[in-house]
Amino acid sequence: MAWLDAQLKPLNAELTTLREAAGRTLAASVVSDFDVPGFDRATMDGYAVVAVSTEGASAYSRLPLTIIGDSMPGRAFEGSIAQGEAVRVMTGAPMPRGADAVLPAEFVEVESSAAIAALTAVSPGKNVGRRGEDITRGTTLLEPGRTLRPQDVGVLSSIGRGDVCVVRRPRVRLVITGNELLESGSRPEGFHIADSNGPMLAALVERDGGLVDFPGLVRDESGAILEGLQADADVVIVSGGSSVGIEDLAPMLVAQHGELAVHGIAMRPSSPTGLGRIGHRLIFLLPGNPVSSLCAYDFFAGRAIRALGGRSKEWPYRAMPGKLSRKISSPIGRLDYARVTVAGDLVDPLSVGGASVLSSTTRADGFVIVPDDSEGYAAGSEVKVWLYG
Amino acid sequence: MAWLDAQLKPLNAELTTLREAAGRTLAASVVSDFDVPGFDRATMDGYAVVAVSTEGASAYSRLPLTIIGDSMPGRAFEGSIAQGEAVRVMTGAPMPRGADAVLPAEFVEVESSAAIAALTAVSPGKNVGRRGEDITRGTTLLEPGRTLRPQDVGVLSSIGRGDVCVVRRPRVRLVITGNELLESGSRPEGFHIADSNGPMLAALVERDGGLVDFPGLVRDESGAILEGLQADADVVIVSGGSSVGIEDLAPMLVAQHGELAVHGIAMRPSSPTGLGRIGHRLIFLLPGNPVSSLCAYDFFAGRAIRALGGRSKEWPYRAMPGKLSRKISSPIGRLDYARVTVAGDLVDPLSVGGASVLSSTTRADGFVIVPDDSEGYAAGSEVKVWLYG
Repeated sequence: MAWLDAQLKPLNAELTTLREAAGRTLAASVVSDFDVPGFDRATMDGYAVVAVSTEGASAYSRLPLTIIGDSMPGRAFEGSIAQGEAVRVMTGAPMPRGADAVLPAEFVEVESSAAIAALTAVSPGKNVGRRGEDITRGTTLLEPGRTLRPQDVGVLSSIGRGDVCVVRRPRVRLVITGNELLESGSRPEGFHIADSNGPMLAALVERDGGLVDFPGLVRDESGAILEGLQADADVVIVSGGSSVGIEDLAPMLVAQHGELAVHGIAMRPSSPTGLGRIGHRLIFLLPGNPVSSLCAYDFFAGRAIRALGGRSKEWPYRAMPGKLSRKISSPIGRLDYARVTVAGDLVDPLSVGGASVLSSTTRADGFVIVPDDSEGYAAGSEVKVWLYG
Repeated sequence: MAWLDAQLKPLNAELTTLREAAGRTLAASVVSDFDVPGFDRATMDGYAVVAVSTEGASAYSRLPLTIIGDSMPGRAFEGSIAQGEAVRVMTGAPMPRGADAVLPAEFVEVESSAAIAALTAVSPGKNVGRRGEDITRGTTLLEPGRTLRPQDVGVLSSIGRGDVCVVRRPRVRLVITGNELLESGSRPEGFHIADSNGPMLAALVERDGGLVDFPGLVRDESGAILEGLQADADVVIVSGGSSVGIEDLAPMLVAQHGELAVHGIAMRPSSPTGLGRIGHRLIFLLPGNPVSSLCAYDFFAGRAIRALGGRSKEWPYRAMPGKLSRKISSPIGRLDYARVTVAGDLVDPLSVGGASVLSSTTRADGFVIVPDDSEGYAAGSEVKVWLYG
């Protein structure tokens, strides 16, 4: 983890359109060049007035006002207004020159097309949104590192931005090996099985903000694997052939052409995982067993992809506390990833152990981690469950 | 809410490719037509044997075995195996006929290319993954209504599926009105402001799984608004002109051409919100003030879009408990949406009240809801905060 985290700095910035910006990570501060709004405006439908004209008005002491025009959103009243005069305004309309308050429509009696009576007094500034009340020119609105919310996109638009500077999404090449594999979408046949890791990893990478490059299965041959390892990408994920078996070429190729920093991790599943670099590329060697693939992705590759894209390294899973129905054992010195189901606050470890049983991760609601310095948890223990859903 | 919820049934189903399936809502049960794996296979690298051949083997009592071939993933050993024989296997390789266990490589001494010695005994079934151990043909794997996880996509692929039947994504037309508005990407100028609701609503709709149709701003004119209201869409969101002002055409048009079920809601902000239908289309009339737009979207339109797409109606926001630093007041009979900042567990209401101050929703960490039957919360109260981020 220390080696991995030392490799992880957010990628460089790029411009993206506002339409694509939500959920992206801001790469630079956003400072407004504008006051928003750029003018004083009405915040209610009614009549713009000089506030003193309404002094003393009430239902029993109606004060007459003369309508001299209209101000609509985007269509200002051209003239200026004096005491005893009113300009009909809609919410959002510019305040006429000379007016300093808006008398809401419900406190007015309309007497003719040019005459109204005020039924209440308004104080100066009442129902007026001041220039810059939302955003003052020169204000820093958003800081780098922020994940852009839908309303942030709205704010960016309101200050005239059509694009925004965000952290580039990591490009992730998937190198799915295994001569027993058929392309996803094929029916399993004979001693061949349909690839499950490719589509699963593609979905995981996209969940974590990466751009997937998955041109198809790769033969277990040096040349083909090396081509993948040297792809134009920020991250290369190799699935399968990461162990020390006779056909396990990937670790050797990484060591030859770059740095194989870690190979073999004291965890179950996923112990044959490898981590390294070739040039600027981060390389993750994930075991071919699909549960190992999921677990090793979440621990290592996902962490990197999130961090390179400027996101939090932490798992995108919600955690909840629960009580174990049965014990989970794990030897000291090894981290265990135990799939569990959850009913209320009761946490039930799945008895299926196999790293090849991917359906266990669809039957499971989540997982519990037993760290390497623990022998596990007794039945009835409080544990933290990470929820897949 | 009762009216709205009565309108909400998931849309019909459509096929999507696995590549696009993660995060979508499953529309039909998934039953496997295959056993996965379709054959017994080795779960470790080592030697396939007849288990009884290893009975009594130990480091002190090494039992010789003759290697008669290899079984590799996707490339089975053609012959069959007898006692005293072994076939070299890799993890995932088909078990040779006659073999019933795998002796792991680390418990074997290789004596020549054709001879090994077993250093341990293995029992029948040891290190063998049985046909169907992951998935048995005929099993129902996933139920309708499930949000597909990355590993579900892997499982679907493993049973030979190239596509999957999911709930259709709702098509959402945005009708953004306001003669004072400039298209997003324009710099504010004079009495014109740049549209913030359009890009914000587009991002919200996408967050909630909708497909956005936003052809650009719409003039405040009957014909243009009606064209939007009658668009080829499941949901139409009208922004602006939802009040009772002189230019507020949308509510009238909905009433004329369909049903205006609700117009005006006892909440702040967003009181001018309207809900209705025209034909099969659900119509949401959202106030033009951007904070009102966000709030009304989250309460009504977002709920509908999530439900139509088969998702949970609930907010996609995480909730946390906190303690109020200052009181929040709200009259009985009105629901209030109070933007707050959070530091540790201290919840601080923002003093800015204006529904036009969108930047308050970027400064805020989230919001607190005061329901209509409450007068608010005293300083120090425990409240539930919904977090934007």
